[in-house]
Amino acid sequence: MHIYIKKAKYSGYCFGVSRAIKLAEDILKKNHGKKTKIFTLGPIIHNPGVTNKLEKKGLISVENLEEIIPGSIFIIRSHGMPPLLVNEIKKKNIKIIDATCPFVKKAQARAKDLSKNGYFVAIVGNRDHPEVIGIKSHVLNKNYVIIEDEANAGKITIKEKIGVVVQTTQPMEKLCLITGKLLEKTKELIVFNTICNTTRRRQSSTKKLANSVDMMIVVGGRNSANTKHLVEISKKCSALTYHIENYKEIKSQWFNNIKKVGISGGASTPVEDIIDVEEAIKKL
Amino acid sequence: MHIYIKKAKYSGYCFGVSRAIKLAEDILKKNHGKKTKIFTLGPIIHNPGVTNKLEKKGLISVENLEEIIPGSIFIIRSHGMPPLLVNEIKKKNIKIIDATCPFVKKAQARAKDLSKNGYFVAIVGNRDHPEVIGIKSHVLNKNYVIIEDEANAGKITIKEKIGVVVQTTQPMEKLCLITGKLLEKTKELIVFNTICNTTRRRQSSTKKLANSVDMMIVVGGRNSANTKHLVEISKKCSALTYHIENYKEIKSQWFNNIKKVGISGGASTPVEDIIDVEEAIKKL
Repeated sequence: MHIYIKKAKYSGYCFGVSRAIKLAEDILKKNHGKKTKIFTLGPIIHNPGVTNKLEKKGLISVENLEEIIPGSIFIIRSHGMPPLLVNEIKKKNIKIIDATCPFVKKAQARAKDLSKNGYFVAIVGNRDHPEVIGIKSHVLNKNYVIIEDEANAGKITIKEKIGVVVQTTQPMEKLCLITGKLLEKTKELIVFNTICNTTRRRQSSTKKLANSVDMMIVVGGRNSANTKHLVEISKKCSALTYHIENYKEIKSQWFNNIKKVGISGGASTPVEDIIDVEEAIKKL
Repeated sequence: MHIYIKKAKYSGYCFGVSRAIKLAEDILKKNHGKKTKIFTLGPIIHNPGVTNKLEKKGLISVENLEEIIPGSIFIIRSHGMPPLLVNEIKKKNIKIIDATCPFVKKAQARAKDLSKNGYFVAIVGNRDHPEVIGIKSHVLNKNYVIIEDEANAGKITIKEKIGVVVQTTQPMEKLCLITGKLLEKTKELIVFNTICNTTRRRQSSTKKLANSVDMMIVVGGRNSANTKHLVEISKKCSALTYHIENYKEIKSQWFNNIKKVGISGGASTPVEDIIDVEEAIKKL
């Protein structure tokens, strides 16, 4: 087969993911050979390949607070956490290392400030995503709503003033549509566009690439919100889009009659994973 | 001819227009027989029929500041005025009566506050409209742009924070589209939706009516921004829309093959003008 392969201009780790992985690797190295255990609640980033490697180095990812052993070290995942939960962990005489992405921290602070200033806070994002769960827990008096789509926005009652914050990995188009709907619900609307620049750049470079190829392969965790958005964006441009976690999932029959392939990756996708995919296609 | 006629649920004078006319009539009455002259700069409201009547009662509408005689009375038009201009007039020992619509005053105050708080002010409206000229003059340090459409919004450079105010008679759809574009230009966007409720109600009742008839007649000044918006809205729903200033413009040939006619009027259209149109159609 003779296939032309092009990679998206922007893909691979974002700042927040790199920082979280570095913090984890540093503490794992420092702790090597010691008895102290190192925990996270849920995966530190949304990429199974990477988290598996960290687990092998000693990072223990648990699902329940109770599993965290007193006297151990605890890393707050890149998506952030509710402060109440962090306080619970602190009570156990645990050393906390905060790997929350600084851009997520900003969204949390904006949500808190807005509620402090009397705004009803609209959080644009996925209800079940850890980042959104963290952001909402910073709003005072539970004066918030989570908005997943335009329909959600249409349902809220008239408010005196509404303040918007956004999950850092949401698509811009969605924010625009939701903002339009919210304008009908208030006389005063403030939007803190907390979508991070990395996300925006990745989305636009994926869009550009998808418009110039026959098929797109988006590499990244199936639990990664930003990777899933890249898949959505790509599907809107190009008919054929595959979302894979690693090169092993590639099937040769995908490439029948395909001349140009684009590869893109999420903010939690290692650059090596993208190179592996490229190499695997070349070998077909 | 047998024509079914339906009037829009909301039409005729809005609060600001009624108030301005009442203020003018009261002072004209009080001043009756006296030598003191009463001026406005430009028409007090955008309806030639109404302003002609006020002129006959003694209201002098001039185009230049120089024409205003010292010692006279001056009425600030419903659309408001730049404070610098009002100060110039005050210097001539002139009594000022402020007929600025309270909702326009609010938009002016919002624009001032936004610029005071470091926001770049985006005024959504028509560049040449007196209301917009008034609003922009309240912005400090000329830190503003006037946005007439999405394309204007697309052209502005990235700003740290943008504050939006809106000409009170603009269509909601336009504000939504422009807000979407502005979200790409800043991380912090505050929108004071200063479109007045009357405007919104009139727009939605005109839309509803236009969708249920064969032809629409929109009554109001050709210089009236809100009337022109009603015409635009109606044209988007129904193929046939006529904008007239009064019943005398009606032509019988418009009604060939027409079964249902809707009548709507702007915020500066007297209810009598709408009734006159209804009667004229009945007589065809």
